Amino acid sequence: MKLFYSNTIEDDILLLPQEEAVHCFRVLRHKIGDQINVIDGKGNLYLCEILDTKSGSARIISKKENFGSHPYNIHIAVAPTKNTDRFEWFLEKATEIGIDRISPIICKHSERKVLKAIRGQRIILSAVKQSLKAYLPLYDDAISFEDFIKEFNADDKNSEVLKYIAFCDEELISKEGFERKSISEAVEHISSAKKSCIFLIGPEGDFSPQEALTAMKSGFTPISLGSSRLRTETAALYAVAAVNLYNQD
Amino acid sequence: MKLFYSNTIEDDILLLPQEEAVHCFRVLRHKIGDQINVIDGKGNLYLCEILDTKSGSARIISKKENFGSHPYNIHIAVAPTKNTDRFEWFLEKATEIGIDRISPIICKHSERKVLKAIRGQRIILSAVKQSLKAYLPLYDDAISFEDFIKEFNADDKNSEVLKYIAFCDEELISKEGFERKSISEAVEHISSAKKSCIFLIGPEGDFSPQEALTAMKSGFTPISLGSSRLRTETAALYAVAAVNLYNQD
Repeated sequence: MKLFYSNTIEDDILLLPQEEAVHCFRVLRHKIGDQINVIDGKGNLYLCEILDTKSGSARIISKKENFGSHPYNIHIAVAPTKNTDRFEWFLEKATEIGIDRISPIICKHSERKVLKAIRGQRIILSAVKQSLKAYLPLYDDAISFEDFIKEFNADDKNSEVLKYIAFCDEELISKEGFERKSISEAVEHISSAKKSCIFLIGPEGDFSPQEALTAMKSGFTPISLGSSRLRTETAALYAVAAVNLYNQD
Repeated sequence: MKLFYSNTIEDDILLLPQEEAVHCFRVLRHKIGDQINVIDGKGNLYLCEILDTKSGSARIISKKENFGSHPYNIHIAVAPTKNTDRFEWFLEKATEIGIDRISPIICKHSERKVLKAIRGQRIILSAVKQSLKAYLPLYDDAISFEDFIKEFNADDKNSEVLKYIAFCDEELISKEGFERKSISEAVEHISSAKKSCIFLIGPEGDFSPQEALTAMKSGFTPISLGSSRLRTETAALYAVAAVNLYNQD
């Protein structure tokens, strides 16, 4: 099944944005009267009939809700990697497996502080369509580590969210009176508590001790992702795969 | 910790191959008398003192066995993707997380039938060093799907190996009298039985019905990797992450 995307839907008529229309009409050579499948990024899959190839309009025949949804809610806040390909690879793979929100965070040891947001959005949309989903993950603008922690410390709604930080320095963790959990313990807890979760994943040089401490004091439980030293993008994807594996239908 | 690799070790002297020597002496500017860490790809980590920068020789001071080993054995047989980057990405990520053997298999629907084996080896070695391991996964030459199945059907040793094939066509599976397991069931079984495992992952167009049937009749249990439609390389990595997650120390 080939999916198109539209965010302009009124009553039973939708419009394909230009990039989607070019792909639909020029590349795939669809004609007026053809039936196509369109997602809205909010969970709906529409079966439509093409009305007009110039405006890109189509008439909705039927609608399927919660298409390609997953029974968990995961938010990854991750430092963009120095090499953009590696970060974009994470965006694609996390979307394929199933993620709800991605926040690029700029940390003390971050070597990359600027991101191509539109390119990232495009990669995510492409992965949503390729993996047969109708929910577009939320892709935040880059934010500083401190501001991210403030947002998720202050927000009362977040008592319903289990918060974790992947951090390696076990000595610092225990010195400060915290206890590190394994990723298995974390995902088992997420699964049994049926709560949303946030994972913080640091840059190539890891979080600074100060950042880790701030996060732990703000309710982020330190976790280990196992005995391998994983790259940033691998660690972030590993967390997504782990939550997905423990929360399959 | 920075690791180098050598496969030429006699008594307490080892030689760095040319590529490693260039990196050690020209790029990182190590001198005679410096101490370096060297792996042999067979599980050993050596602390050495550089003797000579021309021959690349070093004297072994101490040895650590089973460095970066993992408590499971996973073999992935996967069809190379049309886009080489995607396959090479899998090689890197699977090595980081922890894999023992990779067999590229050429299937009926494979669009890529030739691989750059040396480039793949280099990527794997780089990921081994980056993720602080001393075991180099076995990277087989590409083999046809039929030959691979013959090898793992006939071989008596393989009764100790749990065999799985990721395959989506549930109708065919049940029509032929087989039962599909979930990936969670599979990895739980691998973990409790403490056995080695093989996963077959198909190309972009999936295995042909004939291939899936051949595999199932040869003792490969069909499994589902969840509700998302994953790309070949994502599916293969997901299986590695799942086995790793259920078999942490």
